[in-house]
Amino acid sequence: MSEVYPWHADSHAAEDRQRWAVKIEYDGRGLVGWQRQKNGLSVQELLEDAAQRLAGGRKVPSITAGRTDARVHATGQVAHLDFPADMPLNGRSVRDGLGYHLKPHPVVVLAAASVAPTWSARFSAVRRRYRYRILNRASRPGLEADRVWHVRHPLDVAAMNEAARLLLGQHDFSTFRAAACQANSPIRTLDRLELVCEGELIHVEVEARSFLHHQVRNLVGTLQLVGCGRWTPEQVKAALEARDRRAGGPTAPAEGLYLVGVDYDPDPFERL
Amino acid sequence: MSEVYPWHADSHAAEDRQRWAVKIEYDGRGLVGWQRQKNGLSVQELLEDAAQRLAGGRKVPSITAGRTDARVHATGQVAHLDFPADMPLNGRSVRDGLGYHLKPHPVVVLAAASVAPTWSARFSAVRRRYRYRILNRASRPGLEADRVWHVRHPLDVAAMNEAARLLLGQHDFSTFRAAACQANSPIRTLDRLELVCEGELIHVEVEARSFLHHQVRNLVGTLQLVGCGRWTPEQVKAALEARDRRAGGPTAPAEGLYLVGVDYDPDPFERL
Repeated sequence: MSEVYPWHADSHAAEDRQRWAVKIEYDGRGLVGWQRQKNGLSVQELLEDAAQRLAGGRKVPSITAGRTDARVHATGQVAHLDFPADMPLNGRSVRDGLGYHLKPHPVVVLAAASVAPTWSARFSAVRRRYRYRILNRASRPGLEADRVWHVRHPLDVAAMNEAARLLLGQHDFSTFRAAACQANSPIRTLDRLELVCEGELIHVEVEARSFLHHQVRNLVGTLQLVGCGRWTPEQVKAALEARDRRAGGPTAPAEGLYLVGVDYDPDPFERL
Repeated sequence: MSEVYPWHADSHAAEDRQRWAVKIEYDGRGLVGWQRQKNGLSVQELLEDAAQRLAGGRKVPSITAGRTDARVHATGQVAHLDFPADMPLNGRSVRDGLGYHLKPHPVVVLAAASVAPTWSARFSAVRRRYRYRILNRASRPGLEADRVWHVRHPLDVAAMNEAARLLLGQHDFSTFRAAACQANSPIRTLDRLELVCEGELIHVEVEARSFLHHQVRNLVGTLQLVGCGRWTPEQVKAALEARDRRAGGPTAPAEGLYLVGVDYDPDPFERL
């Protein structure tokens, strides 16, 4: 997280560029996450390489709404790409052209929309929505291997929801913040943290304008302690108030996490 | 389909054996289907090998409720296994023991129940339930690769449901029967054939006491012609009445098909 981020690409003179917002789905298995890394394939590298091929070899920088970790999945990630201004593009050619060049990787462009040069996938976002999927049963996952957190112990979802409600609203979330987090402030406003059962699956639905690094996974890892009966909801509240990562529960594994959507006002994809 | 089937194992003297029903989930990718084959890994081989290891090297024959094809998935397959009578087994030790020896393959035992030596996973079944999943959108699948049939053309689900209703009940299903099908009769009774939309996914829910070889995939391939506007529902009815495979639509790909459940009366897993 210490590299120079490509949003400095925003300094490109706007008249040389046309900005496109893209909605992306990916399977996090085998990926090192959003951000370019030397040790493996990233979504950023795959997307920018595909865009560069579409642009006849010219570089196309990208900015994302959420820099997901290694093995985290997305069904509604959003990024923007700055293509050269002289390219004759439309929503369909961007979507299908990127999709073609992204083959055979499990990264797919669902939609593409032209946006103003001042629009940012990152800074214009008003809400990020995550889902964390727990498979709560004795048998290990067969069809859902690497797509869920497998928890064998039967979880008390009502108790977990009670604890979740204590975390809603604006708080200092230092207890649930990774040491590597680069945000200026640990204050965040949690708009939704709710567990919904779907058979053997428990979906943890989490929404906020923005999140701290590992915040969702640290929240889920802590709620799981409540579900197992090891913590009471009140202990979660006390952990929050400690404002210390050491007071929180463990980090839930990456493979259960999905970035399901990013909201903008207005939604650039709405008219598609 | 021309091999000697292991249900001749039923001739084992019952007093030498204890019969266990197992409910199984598997990811069909990389598997050649239920039945043992020389050209790849089958569920039957993996399950019987795991059971043999559990039985200290003694052979444990199996019979299944549905011999699924290569690449077909299951969330509720049922089989029975005849273990040596002298083994001290219970539902948990069968489930977890098989699960352990099935690692690292994406085949999982969800439950195990002791059944009478006359009970058969195949012949005692009163209903098989399949789900066929179609991803109906422009972009190829990212997270759902090899788990859905990707159909780009927007499908008219209302017309497909209209055609589906014409196929319900008892009919000669020769039009939807694979040439290799070994059933004595082409008469089957379709209890459910219904399309349910879930976002970009279309679930085709299919239920019958038993099915002909490729019947579900041939039904779905034909309904898809209606969804694309190439056939009317009446043409599907005419195709059924032709009682000729050449009158039907194409076979939908295996990777969209899931065996979701097998019903018994009484249900051996109910008390678990």
